Amino acid sequence: MEIKDLESISIKNKLIQKVNGTQISVQEDVLSIEEPLEIRLKYYQNQEVVTQNISVTMRTPGNDFNLTLGFLFTEGIITEYEAIQGVFHVEKNCALQKNNSVQVELKEGFTPQLMQADRNFYTTSSCGVCGKSSIEAIKTVSPFKELAPTPITISSEILYQLPQKLREAQSDFSNTGGIHASALFRIDGELLFIQEDVGRHNALDKLIGKAFTKVLLPLNQHILLLSGRISFELVQKAAMAGIAVVAAIGAPSSLAVELATECNITLIGFLNENRFNIYCQSSTFNLETTEN
Amino acid sequence: MEIKDLESISIKNKLIQKVNGTQISVQEDVLSIEEPLEIRLKYYQNQEVVTQNISVTMRTPGNDFNLTLGFLFTEGIITEYEAIQGVFHVEKNCALQKNNSVQVELKEGFTPQLMQADRNFYTTSSCGVCGKSSIEAIKTVSPFKELAPTPITISSEILYQLPQKLREAQSDFSNTGGIHASALFRIDGELLFIQEDVGRHNALDKLIGKAFTKVLLPLNQHILLLSGRISFELVQKAAMAGIAVVAAIGAPSSLAVELATECNITLIGFLNENRFNIYCQSSTFNLETTEN
Repeated sequence: MEIKDLESISIKNKLIQKVNGTQISVQEDVLSIEEPLEIRLKYYQNQEVVTQNISVTMRTPGNDFNLTLGFLFTEGIITEYEAIQGVFHVEKNCALQKNNSVQVELKEGFTPQLMQADRNFYTTSSCGVCGKSSIEAIKTVSPFKELAPTPITISSEILYQLPQKLREAQSDFSNTGGIHASALFRIDGELLFIQEDVGRHNALDKLIGKAFTKVLLPLNQHILLLSGRISFELVQKAAMAGIAVVAAIGAPSSLAVELATECNITLIGFLNENRFNIYCQSSTFNLETTEN
Repeated sequence: MEIKDLESISIKNKLIQKVNGTQISVQEDVLSIEEPLEIRLKYYQNQEVVTQNISVTMRTPGNDFNLTLGFLFTEGIITEYEAIQGVFHVEKNCALQKNNSVQVELKEGFTPQLMQADRNFYTTSSCGVCGKSSIEAIKTVSPFKELAPTPITISSEILYQLPQKLREAQSDFSNTGGIHASALFRIDGELLFIQEDVGRHNALDKLIGKAFTKVLLPLNQHILLLSGRISFELVQKAAMAGIAVVAAIGAPSSLAVELATECNITLIGFLNENRFNIYCQSSTFNLETTEN
């Protein structure tokens, strides 16, 4: 059987504001698309057809069949290519859902090794596999969803200092790029704390956990600085903690920008000592310098 | 209640081989530690005490209580600080397990919002939370576990060319660092294919899925090149596909090196056009140049 994978559009253009020194301009920028993919399996068990949701992963669209088969193989669920009857995109009754569900059908006589996967995977209830429903789920769960956004003013002069403050606070090792860092700043640029981990979601969980034990939530007068890129999952965690401003040294994904927009989070990417990009904002920016 | 988190050792020294041009030397290197953490919850339900495993995450040890509470909060499982009776490391009957299990105890009258988490998390069976058992599980599941490693010789001259070949094959966008890439090369340096994704585990699943549909597995005469760092999860996927050599532009974690060693994978980090580090090897290296 030949499996023909689809090429998909994996980038998206978006008008953003680019700040350079004290200048601001609107320019088109390119974002990598992040969307959920549901992985489903259809197989025979005691002469009956069983259909099962196996996992949902946040991915860049394109090569979804390869992704699905690679996942099922590397998790030990399917071990032989001969087992595969076909791979298909599943139509769902949701206009937003654009090809975000893939079903692998096994031939009769082949059983998936679901016990081999000695862990459970992310799964979603309901339709659940368009970015829109992922965003709605976050908005429903956040304990700070009733809070009106507090208006804040962010100084570019303070922002430009944050990457250097992050580097100084990082351990020597993390500075070499071996590990991810998350840092929490007050809006006036004071570093409250920094946490590090091999997993960037862990570094952020450590940071929010620390703020939680210090009863600082919601962090609506604070800036979160991430050492790497900004994925949907990181904005999700920031939204749960009511963080006002998420800034990163790297780029955000498309779904990270969409979620930040919905949750009134100001999202800043590619921050360095004299430049940054604004992907969405609920805050006012002050670009003036105090130096003469 | 005051929660005192433990500082832990998060880096590990290891003797590795550093290759620079045609020279090789043994030097001490620093790895970031990656270990599993089990997150457990203890709470009251109808006057009875319930203990439940919630998730296992691969993390860098240190600030485990912050990580646990941040995870439970950002997943919407615990929403109030007042709910927490205490946070403790759980002793397990396993000498290797060094503080890899944390239990959060809730006060009577507080119920975790487990339905809020509309997804299931990674969980492991059995002890499951020392790196050793994670490695054993992979070794058991791999369909190629019975294969003796095929002796191969890797030319440093070919290795030095791979980062440039990867950059040329990447899309313009991925070259800016907005996305992860995985590339599969034959041992003679020929690029077979490249796959990209916002998630590095997805990029590798796409690559292995493609090799699976082309019935190329096991990839025991091949080099996998990763655009970023090497985590346990990526070596796990490589091991499942029988990949002989894993090389990366970035650094490996401690557990990535341990798993590669156990699975007879040659692990190369910090590869650029005239240098690389060898963390473990089952292959022979040829450092000679053919140029005059």
